[in-house]
Amino acid sequence: MKRRPRRPRGGVAPIPHRGILKIEALPYTPLDDAAVDAIHASALEILATTGIEMWNVEARAIIKECGGRVNEAAQRVWLDPGLVQQQISAAPETIAMKARDPNKNLTVGGQNIVFGAVGGSPFVSDLDKGRRYGTLDDLRRLNKLIHVSDVLALGGGHLIEPVDIPVSYRHLETTYCDITLTDKMPRATALGGIVARDIVTMMALVHAPAGATTDEAIAALVTTPVVMAVISVNSPLRYDGPMLEGLIELANHGQVPIITPFIMIGAMSPITLPAAIAQQHAEVLAGIVLAQCVNPGCPVIYGGFITPLDMQSGAVPFGTPEATWTLAAGAQMARHVGLPYRSSGALTTSQLPDAQAAYESLFNLWPAVMARTNVILQAAGWLDGGLVASFEKFMLDIELIERLFAVYRAPRVDTTALALDQIDAIGPGGHHLDSDYTRKRYRNAFFRSTLSSLAPHETWRDEGGLDAAQRANRAWKDKLSAYKPPPIDQGVVEALDAYKSRRIEQIMGAEGDTLSSR
Amino acid sequence: MKRRPRRPRGGVAPIPHRGILKIEALPYTPLDDAAVDAIHASALEILATTGIEMWNVEARAIIKECGGRVNEAAQRVWLDPGLVQQQISAAPETIAMKARDPNKNLTVGGQNIVFGAVGGSPFVSDLDKGRRYGTLDDLRRLNKLIHVSDVLALGGGHLIEPVDIPVSYRHLETTYCDITLTDKMPRATALGGIVARDIVTMMALVHAPAGATTDEAIAALVTTPVVMAVISVNSPLRYDGPMLEGLIELANHGQVPIITPFIMIGAMSPITLPAAIAQQHAEVLAGIVLAQCVNPGCPVIYGGFITPLDMQSGAVPFGTPEATWTLAAGAQMARHVGLPYRSSGALTTSQLPDAQAAYESLFNLWPAVMARTNVILQAAGWLDGGLVASFEKFMLDIELIERLFAVYRAPRVDTTALALDQIDAIGPGGHHLDSDYTRKRYRNAFFRSTLSSLAPHETWRDEGGLDAAQRANRAWKDKLSAYKPPPIDQGVVEALDAYKSRRIEQIMGAEGDTLSSR
Repeated sequence: MKRRPRRPRGGVAPIPHRGILKIEALPYTPLDDAAVDAIHASALEILATTGIEMWNVEARAIIKECGGRVNEAAQRVWLDPGLVQQQISAAPETIAMKARDPNKNLTVGGQNIVFGAVGGSPFVSDLDKGRRYGTLDDLRRLNKLIHVSDVLALGGGHLIEPVDIPVSYRHLETTYCDITLTDKMPRATALGGIVARDIVTMMALVHAPAGATTDEAIAALVTTPVVMAVISVNSPLRYDGPMLEGLIELANHGQVPIITPFIMIGAMSPITLPAAIAQQHAEVLAGIVLAQCVNPGCPVIYGGFITPLDMQSGAVPFGTPEATWTLAAGAQMARHVGLPYRSSGALTTSQLPDAQAAYESLFNLWPAVMARTNVILQAAGWLDGGLVASFEKFMLDIELIERLFAVYRAPRVDTTALALDQIDAIGPGGHHLDSDYTRKRYRNAFFRSTLSSLAPHETWRDEGGLDAAQRANRAWKDKLSAYKPPPIDQGVVEALDAYKSRRIEQIMGAEGDTLSSR
Repeated sequence: MKRRPRRPRGGVAPIPHRGILKIEALPYTPLDDAAVDAIHASALEILATTGIEMWNVEARAIIKECGGRVNEAAQRVWLDPGLVQQQISAAPETIAMKARDPNKNLTVGGQNIVFGAVGGSPFVSDLDKGRRYGTLDDLRRLNKLIHVSDVLALGGGHLIEPVDIPVSYRHLETTYCDITLTDKMPRATALGGIVARDIVTMMALVHAPAGATTDEAIAALVTTPVVMAVISVNSPLRYDGPMLEGLIELANHGQVPIITPFIMIGAMSPITLPAAIAQQHAEVLAGIVLAQCVNPGCPVIYGGFITPLDMQSGAVPFGTPEATWTLAAGAQMARHVGLPYRSSGALTTSQLPDAQAAYESLFNLWPAVMARTNVILQAAGWLDGGLVASFEKFMLDIELIERLFAVYRAPRVDTTALALDQIDAIGPGGHHLDSDYTRKRYRNAFFRSTLSSLAPHETWRDEGGLDAAQRANRAWKDKLSAYKPPPIDQGVVEALDAYKSRRIEQIMGAEGDTLSSR
């Protein structure tokens, strides 16, 4: 196996845009150095002694070839510390990713933070029609809202489950929407090798060099990351077959797996937060080792998603103090192994876009930013434990993200800003309302909220006495009506249409075969 | 003037209790060292060259005696850097304060954070009766809610304006409630020398040594801080007469002024955040110099309260990104001069306890904690720009504070918590739900919310589909019904009753005189 030097992956030159929040300040670090070392050592011990299941024969063969120990009957692999350290050091610290609009290219990792919207909810809701199953029309509208928000750097990615589209080819329709309705870099869900292959192919059609065949376009992607996709771990310590297929497919084509265990503490890990973090670290490292064995130096993102299970009620609360701690501790562990880190944003268990939704979301979103999470998924729209993508919650979360951008846009402290001449000129008891200094600056002096009501009580009451959720309802309709589709090459659309139609035909044909052979 | 060594003030030995949030981690510091130095130098320059108005002849005489320059006709004083540095270095870094219940004594400053409820709102509101003028009954109920919440270390302090009590002796009735309905250390509003004197006297009656006369009891307070009171600055650069009287009275008796400018940026300061911080720093330092000249070494708290004025709408938004920055920058300036710092907590412009109220409050409350604000006032109940004390918002804010306590209760990372033996014993694909390790810990493993709904959608719907505000309505009623008055010495009650009655008679008599002499 060839080793490559550790360096940023990808050939594009990203341009800074508002969608990237850059945090130079020291991140929030709940773990001290000794704790980081202890957790890392624990994860290495877990991989070497307990091992991890990989339910895919190809994955196990790759691990064995790479130097791991394998028990085929148990579908379990063991990784020694030297192997783990060697492999993870091959993965790049930052990833230069290409979007359909080159102005929306992204460097993922380092001091950069990017936000992505909700993903995978079976239900949608709005104040007009309530809670209901999602459809492709809902997914389209969410993609449009993503496109018009300049604080979401990531495009769509199977935002909801559109139940009006058969599961067998749903990924083709959602990926088509994700690619065409916005020119931001899409995410995806790489459940199974066939799905991953379809996504990689469609992305290749988008980014195909002039005159290239589809195979040539796919080959060209290997050094150009254009899509990221969540690879879930079935905790504790198990990778399922479809996820391993997806991981291998992505790694082979130089696309970016976000390796993410989902751990409910006390059920899928021991009931202490440090144990959950150690187990998560072990699980992620195993996936990274596999990716590096598949394609040395390929880009990967370290994902974390930990939540308590309240055993007294059976509830799974989100946006908890435990989440605050674990997602920040996870960021430290990702930095410890030099990888970009993904966690989640505006999580809440609330059934409504109410005060609970706001505080739980902010108790998850802000620490994700403070911990310098490079990729914050589920950052807009998540409601009801993720079962619902809410249009009002989407706008509420956009407000939270806009505020976070403003919080970290610190003013320069210099002579002009300190303005001692102004303080002296106005003097005690005066006011600065109509000074030239004020007139020159007042338009852009402060953050302006789109969702908050700042009117006096009487004005607010006379204008209908709306709450924040009702204003959010108006806001998403305004945003939708302002949507303009981004330009796209007609040849690309035709290629995508043709590919999608052909694949749907194949899949329907295969299903027909399956049905007729029963 | 005698100089005392810089040391904690007060003779009591505080016992740690849940009401004190201790933050050992490095605080959030938006200013670098050069910016801190530049702001401090700017404040010294403002005080030396522009000067500050003090609308009280005694205050100016004290400043002059102390070495300041005074222009009597302009009511303005100038303070040279050497004088400022010398005087502020006399103020103690931490303040040991005594409560009626010695278990609720507090050390204010250092790594400690304490929270106090809303203060001074003319209106109250709840979901049952809506928005209305406050009464003494409302103030009593808020004091009871403060008493039963173990995350509020500070007692009441003129929480609302009870319009059913005449202004002339309102402070006697509110202070009486603040002292008797909870045994936590009260705050007060020291508007004028007479009011401050009444509050000091009533506190002296509470803490009187056995057999002491009232004068002896007042004298005994000088080394025992038992009450803190906000002294407002009329920005820019002006102290009004009544506030100076109150400040002098408090300093004379060793009680704790919280010197707090209220700056709407762009109106009462130049429109840049650094200028607002520099001006605030100058204004606070002037008050501290006065207090130290009155009583060298007396305890003082450095207060900050800055908010933008949105000149495009005329609105005064709270819980803004600008507030996040200024309150944290203020904390750095207070630490720079070695003083305990006060800012504000759950501020919002929202008219309802909705999502806006939650996110604005948390965007103010959490940075106040992150910046290690030692005294966070207005941390529970504030609504509608402070015009309203809302019972539901009170419970919402208590939830936020409870979560913040939990966030900073970090787990120990040790062998027991890492639980590698558990991870190995359960193995891949297993679950930890019924292990002995889990059974031993599950009851106290996680934060438990009182306000959040964590039920599945159907359960939540069948139970009435309440939002967080409606649950908060139930919560404050439950809390009120659980209230039990704290024990109080019957002799103290009699002394307070007698003092209050006598003073009300005096005040009514004086008003009668005024009326008859018209």
